[in-house]
Amino acid sequence: MTLHLERDLLLLKRRLLEASTLAEQAIRRATAALANRDNALARSVIAGDAEIDSREIEVEEEAIRVLAIHQPVATDLRFIAACLKINNDLERIGDLAAKIARRVLDLYSDTTKDPVLPQDLLELADLVINLLRRALDAFARGDVELARKVRMDDDRIDRIHREIFFRMREQMKQCPTLVEPANSMLSVSSSLERIADHVTNIAEDVIYMIGGEIVRHPGHANERGHVD
Amino acid sequence: MTLHLERDLLLLKRRLLEASTLAEQAIRRATAALANRDNALARSVIAGDAEIDSREIEVEEEAIRVLAIHQPVATDLRFIAACLKINNDLERIGDLAAKIARRVLDLYSDTTKDPVLPQDLLELADLVINLLRRALDAFARGDVELARKVRMDDDRIDRIHREIFFRMREQMKQCPTLVEPANSMLSVSSSLERIADHVTNIAEDVIYMIGGEIVRHPGHANERGHVD
Repeated sequence: MTLHLERDLLLLKRRLLEASTLAEQAIRRATAALANRDNALARSVIAGDAEIDSREIEVEEEAIRVLAIHQPVATDLRFIAACLKINNDLERIGDLAAKIARRVLDLYSDTTKDPVLPQDLLELADLVINLLRRALDAFARGDVELARKVRMDDDRIDRIHREIFFRMREQMKQCPTLVEPANSMLSVSSSLERIADHVTNIAEDVIYMIGGEIVRHPGHANERGHVD
Repeated sequence: MTLHLERDLLLLKRRLLEASTLAEQAIRRATAALANRDNALARSVIAGDAEIDSREIEVEEEAIRVLAIHQPVATDLRFIAACLKINNDLERIGDLAAKIARRVLDLYSDTTKDPVLPQDLLELADLVINLLRRALDAFARGDVELARKVRMDDDRIDRIHREIFFRMREQMKQCPTLVEPANSMLSVSSSLERIADHVTNIAEDVIYMIGGEIVRHPGHANERGHVD
């Protein structure tokens, strides 16, 4: 590998990690807004999504530029392909954080109402943030073992989301005034579960990047009882 | 461009179009299952998702192979980058079709119940299928004007989804027995809206592929009243 290529790959990695910091921050803030009924913070997450979108385009342009200039092969090519995919997942994570922030505004904008936040929703958010943190560490350090562990944790997140889904649905049946807040909570839970799916994609891209092994699409979801 | 590269790019395009046929078929079938209360058809959509997943991996491997062998630049490089992204969107469209099929099973597996299907949900499905058809035509023919038109239609789909969302929520408030079916219909509507987002991505990739112009992330959604 030429020094020139090595420098450009490091730069690409740094840019992607910067973009990942913004995405991670967006989920942290959206979750804090939810926990603390902080509408101003929720609005800042929504406003900040434009910056995450711009970063996505910059990283993609940079990756294509490195491909065009250096025409890398083997490991370097896989690294760039993985960066392109991770970049895409980070952008969607940013979108989902903004979506959670919009639900926070739905929940708390009417100050005459006082929706009760399910405790496991915040627990789910913590798990998802922790999972993203570990997937990004696995990418930064090229740690394939850590990436494999991240993949395993997605099941636990699915289970909690499913429990929240069924409980919220029961609440809606029991009390019409709970339909709106329960719908918003459900939407938050569903966004967290989708973020975890993107995090799993990132972990799979790290495994591919390092070993060339494609581990996507393991075992398909059951036909029923799956609330995704 | 060498004949060898030209042949490989054509092959890649053909493979991607084959994968797209499967994804399109999956949505058509999931929608038909919904309209005709056809649980067997819904199950075949769920079972067929594994094939769509395999195709995604094949197309990606092929694209990386072409990159490594020919080290293309400029238009050819953009074409391959666009194929990689469109491939990813097709795989997610397949996942969402399977998700719709799971909701069909939720809706119709209890034959003592007879949920009323909102007419505009089928209308929404038709619009989304038509949009995907046109985006794929734009890709196959390299028709940038058609791709631009596809991007414009996404707003209409968002509007219909929003109408369905608010109507379903009202139904849930009025009648507890409607909570379960209305939740399933809402999930279908939401999946259709997400498919339309992926279709918009495909149209944007076609525009980029042909002109090198990045048109993503136009105007951000409003803070509230957005049900995505």
